[in-house]
Amino acid sequence: MEQKKKVVLAYSGGLDTSYCAVYLTRELGLEVHTVIVNSGGFSVEELAAIEKRAYELGSTTHQVIDVTERFYQQCLRYLIFGNILKNDTYPLSVSAERMFQSLAIAEYARETGAEYIAHGSTGAGNDQVRFDVAFAVIAPNTEIITPIRDLRLSRQAEIEYLQKQGFEMSWEKAKYSINKGIWGTSVGGVETLTSHQALPESAYPTQLSRTAPATVEITFEKGEPVALNGERLNPVNLIQVLNDLAGQYAIGRDTHVGDTILGIKGRVGFEAPAPLILIKAHHLLEKHTSSRWQQLHKDYVANWYGTLLHEAQYLDPVMRDFEALLESSQERVSGTVFVTLKPYQFELQGVDSKYDMMRSKVATYGEENNAWDSRDAKGFIKIFSNQLRIHSSLNDEN
Amino acid sequence: MEQKKKVVLAYSGGLDTSYCAVYLTRELGLEVHTVIVNSGGFSVEELAAIEKRAYELGSTTHQVIDVTERFYQQCLRYLIFGNILKNDTYPLSVSAERMFQSLAIAEYARETGAEYIAHGSTGAGNDQVRFDVAFAVIAPNTEIITPIRDLRLSRQAEIEYLQKQGFEMSWEKAKYSINKGIWGTSVGGVETLTSHQALPESAYPTQLSRTAPATVEITFEKGEPVALNGERLNPVNLIQVLNDLAGQYAIGRDTHVGDTILGIKGRVGFEAPAPLILIKAHHLLEKHTSSRWQQLHKDYVANWYGTLLHEAQYLDPVMRDFEALLESSQERVSGTVFVTLKPYQFELQGVDSKYDMMRSKVATYGEENNAWDSRDAKGFIKIFSNQLRIHSSLNDEN
Amino acid sequence: MEQKKKVVLAYSGGLDTSYCAVYLTRELGLEVHTVIVNSGGFSVEELAAIEKRAYELGSTTHQVIDVTERFYQQCLRYLIFGNILKNDTYPLSVSAERMFQSLAIAEYARETGAEYIAHGSTGAGNDQVRFDVAFAVIAPNTEIITPIRDLRLSRQAEIEYLQKQGFEMSWEKAKYSINKGIWGTSVGGVETLTSHQALPESAYPTQLSRTAPATVEITFEKGEPVALNGERLNPVNLIQVLNDLAGQYAIGRDTHVGDTILGIKGRVGFEAPAPLILIKAHHLLEKHTSSRWQQLHKDYVANWYGTLLHEAQYLDPVMRDFEALLESSQERVSGTVFVTLKPYQFELQGVDSKYDMMRSKVATYGEENNAWDSRDAKGFIKIFSNQLRIHSSLNDEN
Amino acid sequence: MEQKKKVVLAYSGGLDTSYCAVYLTRELGLEVHTVIVNSGGFSVEELAAIEKRAYELGSTTHQVIDVTERFYQQCLRYLIFGNILKNDTYPLSVSAERMFQSLAIAEYARETGAEYIAHGSTGAGNDQVRFDVAFAVIAPNTEIITPIRDLRLSRQAEIEYLQKQGFEMSWEKAKYSINKGIWGTSVGGVETLTSHQALPESAYPTQLSRTAPATVEITFEKGEPVALNGERLNPVNLIQVLNDLAGQYAIGRDTHVGDTILGIKGRVGFEAPAPLILIKAHHLLEKHTSSRWQQLHKDYVANWYGTLLHEAQYLDPVMRDFEALLESSQERVSGTVFVTLKPYQFELQGVDSKYDMMRSKVATYGEENNAWDSRDAKGFIKIFSNQLRIHSSLNDEN
Repeated sequence: MEQKKKVVLAYSGGLDTSYCAVYLTRELGLEVHTVIVNSGGFSVEELAAIEKRAYELGSTTHQVIDVTERFYQQCLRYLIFGNILKNDTYPLSVSAERMFQSLAIAEYARETGAEYIAHGSTGAGNDQVRFDVAFAVIAPNTEIITPIRDLRLSRQAEIEYLQKQGFEMSWEKAKYSINKGIWGTSVGGVETLTSHQALPESAYPTQLSRTAPATVEITFEKGEPVALNGERLNPVNLIQVLNDLAGQYAIGRDTHVGDTILGIKGRVGFEAPAPLILIKAHHLLEKHTSSRWQQLHKDYVANWYGTLLHEAQYLDPVMRDFEALLESSQERVSGTVFVTLKPYQFELQGVDSKYDMMRSKVATYGEENNAWDSRDAKGFIKIFSNQLRIHSSLNDEN
Repeated sequence: MEQKKKVVLAYSGGLDTSYCAVYLTRELGLEVHTVIVNSGGFSVEELAAIEKRAYELGSTTHQVIDVTERFYQQCLRYLIFGNILKNDTYPLSVSAERMFQSLAIAEYARETGAEYIAHGSTGAGNDQVRFDVAFAVIAPNTEIITPIRDLRLSRQAEIEYLQKQGFEMSWEKAKYSINKGIWGTSVGGVETLTSHQALPESAYPTQLSRTAPATVEITFEKGEPVALNGERLNPVNLIQVLNDLAGQYAIGRDTHVGDTILGIKGRVGFEAPAPLILIKAHHLLEKHTSSRWQQLHKDYVANWYGTLLHEAQYLDPVMRDFEALLESSQERVSGTVFVTLKPYQFELQGVDSKYDMMRSKVATYGEENNAWDSRDAKGFIKIFSNQLRIHSSLNDEN
Repeated sequence: MEQKKKVVLAYSGGLDTSYCAVYLTRELGLEVHTVIVNSGGFSVEELAAIEKRAYELGSTTHQVIDVTERFYQQCLRYLIFGNILKNDTYPLSVSAERMFQSLAIAEYARETGAEYIAHGSTGAGNDQVRFDVAFAVIAPNTEIITPIRDLRLSRQAEIEYLQKQGFEMSWEKAKYSINKGIWGTSVGGVETLTSHQALPESAYPTQLSRTAPATVEITFEKGEPVALNGERLNPVNLIQVLNDLAGQYAIGRDTHVGDTILGIKGRVGFEAPAPLILIKAHHLLEKHTSSRWQQLHKDYVANWYGTLLHEAQYLDPVMRDFEALLESSQERVSGTVFVTLKPYQFELQGVDSKYDMMRSKVATYGEENNAWDSRDAKGFIKIFSNQLRIHSSLNDEN
Repeated sequence: MEQKKKVVLAYSGGLDTSYCAVYLTRELGLEVHTVIVNSGGFSVEELAAIEKRAYELGSTTHQVIDVTERFYQQCLRYLIFGNILKNDTYPLSVSAERMFQSLAIAEYARETGAEYIAHGSTGAGNDQVRFDVAFAVIAPNTEIITPIRDLRLSRQAEIEYLQKQGFEMSWEKAKYSINKGIWGTSVGGVETLTSHQALPESAYPTQLSRTAPATVEITFEKGEPVALNGERLNPVNLIQVLNDLAGQYAIGRDTHVGDTILGIKGRVGFEAPAPLILIKAHHLLEKHTSSRWQQLHKDYVANWYGTLLHEAQYLDPVMRDFEALLESSQERVSGTVFVTLKPYQFELQGVDSKYDMMRSKVATYGEENNAWDSRDAKGFIKIFSNQLRIHSSLNDEN
């Protein structure tokens, strides 16, 4: 008897990928190996429920791959180093994690020698690009199958197919489509399909539960968050603890409007308490510890790092070059930032750092200055204005 | 009898420039012509009081120059076009207005044929650079005198000198040093000389006086704010009305940490309700109406426009080049933005624009897409990943 | 009888598009309207021969559209302003002209109400992208037909088809594939398919015919070349005259290695005497007349202008923004540049310009300087080094 | 008896620094310690003659510091990685070496505990900035003395002073001022003080002595030149050998026009055969081995690295960040480049590299392509043009 060919399926437990699991088995005659990648958004209970469903649907094996630590080390770290908010707003929550999920699945398929690799994305959005690109580069000899994209079935048609195949599961459609990860939760709904409506407060998974202001101290070492209120934590844990704490204040909500890889505009709500706080706190620390030139130029690099990460170009070697620059720029970004949490907002109080350039004895801002005298200042400005004066003088000659 | 030589003095009514007025007259034997430039920060009553004092101190003439409209046309417009917040925080309130005050004074000195031009800045900060550069370029044949920078007198010594000269005015020192203009008010105090303390709420000139949320509609045409809640206003008026309204919510406060032109770090608080709201609202409108490439590249230009404006390079011809690009980029940035004001914060609800690229019938985000099919998407991604696949293939060959 | 539907065919007179003309008529039953766009590369004789062939092959109408002047006004001007050489080498000869040919054809199809529009590019290279993009944007209701891309016939199969249809033309394959335009001639051959072989001297259409060095004076006004050796010429004529003259010296040959829009590397030889000379001469004039900041930032913009033009993004609005900046930057780029032509190379001798900043009386390079004294210089450098000294001092404290 | 205070003097053997040596000893009563830093421009004989003169003039000790290897490792390497030619012309010959000379002298002064440090630069140019900045940052407790800048003596006055002090040396003034280093030789003369005259051929120290074309093979490993014609060489030696060889062809001459740190324009001739060839050869290798994004972004970084190096900002930490990116970008820049040397010019023939992306089997340029089909290409272009079509469609609606 001929052996069935193996397909690795990126499985989320939802209707689309459940349909895929059955379709791949029954229609294409493949041996389905489901895999789910956790980048910090799934609880143990959720993962167990998803595994149970995978086996119910006929998966031969089911694998949970946790990439949270790797995701932090190979990506989130750099997003903090670069103070990266896409379009000045969005911490790239989904963009970043989907890339790392795709990479893990591609590696799993390559390692397990699967002939096929499948995902459940439609043909409309960014996720298909991240999956396809990662699969094609990491597992070039594995063929990609995308039933949802190809068949374009309605939700109802998928449910009916599953019922016909004997799977009587309940597939109620949530009012808001939620994607949860360690670096933020995206929220889509009828409002985000318009240009003028904001999401209602109730659409956000995390609700305000605390109103008394509290100050937290976040300690960074070479740009990485390493302690909260003086307690040393693994960065991944720190992000999770801060997400929980700041989430009680309903901090970090906003709406992202941006360009998809396919060239159209998209709009999505999100909540990302820890990412927003960490990025703004880190940025403040850099203002005290980095040179003017460092700040100007790392902004350029960070903007592009975020843009190319968003656009599924994480594997381009330029991203390694950017990371080298960003890492170098963090040499002195060490110290503590004081942040006050309040309902729906936070305030940066200030910083304490041994590398704080405001603390140097060479020159001090705002007080009687002994580092230079008025004669120095006049000489400086005279020469500083040389080119403008030369330029202007030629104007007069004509 | 020999005629006295004329000096134009940038006069603010404060102790330092009052000292200068008397010093220039009595010690240097010059004929003092005071001038004050209003860029939206002075009331009629304040200007009258300053004029009165100027004549008391012996000024031969006193001139008020209002540059608010010019300031908007030649500078603020571009700060809005560029969504410019220095270090992602500061709308360049003082940096920008000081430049335009300096230019107006330099032009006044040149037109009135003054032999000298004087300002009251110390040798420690940015303002001396803005004054000196503008004076040297615009009025190259006029000599600059800076008694405060040169003599480095204490406040007490200045008061005693004025008393000795017969001027018994009261010079109580304010707890916080305030600089008010149309594009924001800066606030300096003991806290801003540290790195870790925030300004107390009471330090801000504008206090919270309204708590019920309100939504305002801001209409932009080619990037310029032209109407508020449907009422057409001159942009300068619109900024003032919005400052008053949003000031009641204590919106737009923050602390700026940055690099001075002289290479040291400085820290200052500010309140700038209208600038913050206009910039964020304008930015949101651009996300809907501008191409991906426009946004990426105008960010680069805007960042440099803000940096060079801050650093007294407004007269460099590159600034005209940047302005040409920024103006071109606003061709379609027209529409209305909905903003909800709340105590200490504001939320962008959304936009309405005929140029909103989310409204195009060619392709629509998030719904069943008819602009391309799955075969197109697969072709796109295949070719989109060509270079990554080529790059990766070489890796394997070695 | 049903009326035939109209197709506009981009016709070059070569085998591929001749095949298309017959295929569209005979196989698809369309009424073929051939059009050829001249951007400076065709002689009157060549155009007449192409027209004759078009009618022989059954074209209903044949149209010659000359875009040379428009090409200069809307594109070449900016390539000169930006000193644009892709990858520091290639003046974008084909990239630029193909875009303008595509636009002209798309507009012609839209104006004539054609139902279809056809080009003869294969699926391998950049040209198909330029055609397809221009057609889709300018003539969105016209359907694109691309027989060569779709059918992938061999040269021999095309010839046989034409013979079978009664067209006995001679189609000898040139050893080198040549594309000639006002902004340069590209040359492809067996050598350019390798990475290590240069084209032989004989591959270049223009051969060395003059060896005695000659000096030419090129006069620019606001960045545009307006006179040669003192004789005022329309820029398009000037480019042609300079191409003829410098071509006699075999100047301007090189090999371009770059990334295609489809993500693969390509290599092509070219000769472009006038473009190379004009760009280098213009650049030298800018070094004398533009500010340091202008040069730094226009390089950024020019690099992107060239990149996006190459990648078929000419219609993106960001290109208009770039053009606005580039045009503004040319305000003072006026004067004469002296260039010596020699076999295979040219030397820039120098410039003469009333805006030459080396001529200012404010300060002069290399002689005893009276614009500032040693005390000014020391003050300047002291403050200039403030941040480095502060940064270094913190290093020592730890 | 009180001990004399020590001064470290940057000594070149020329008139200015000879004057300084005597002035510091006789007028200021200091113990003079001369030091000369060789960055590849001095022969053993020249160094011996300079040492002899130093002692004749009364120097207590004389030190030769060779920084050539360090100069390569900490600077030239990165100039090659970045293909850095200032203003697209100048390899930063003097700018770069003067910085490393200054650093070595500052470190020597700090290590030997000198109270003073002296250089012989005037107040007009860039060199004083490089010396002062390096001295102030590296040896902040050492006071800087600059007799030439302060006293502004004529050449004749210096000679007479030396004669009066008993030093009867011959000080004929060379017609051209020459500065020789491993990365190029600068040449200044009456012509370079104008804007329109080129240096005469005779002004260049190296004269044409070979006319028969020769091809050299330069092998790079991770961006560094490691072999010439297959013979492995230390990069410093390779540069010297290539300078000698290509110098015989009078290759690498040009005139640099640029902005000094003090804001005025300057013009200088140079000959730099090896730098020009290595940079162009390296650049070609990158075009074959680096991704499109790498090339675009490293250009940005390299442009700034060169600019800030030129402007005496080598010690800014941003330079270390740039170096990290540049180094990362060289991961695959390995292979051999074929270069033909001819009188006054060189031609790049091509490259051979295992990382050459033109060699990948995934997709190949110019031949019948099997990596994608016409359907893929059409899908790609359709989606690639989405935003342009959307943008254009809105245009039509209004």
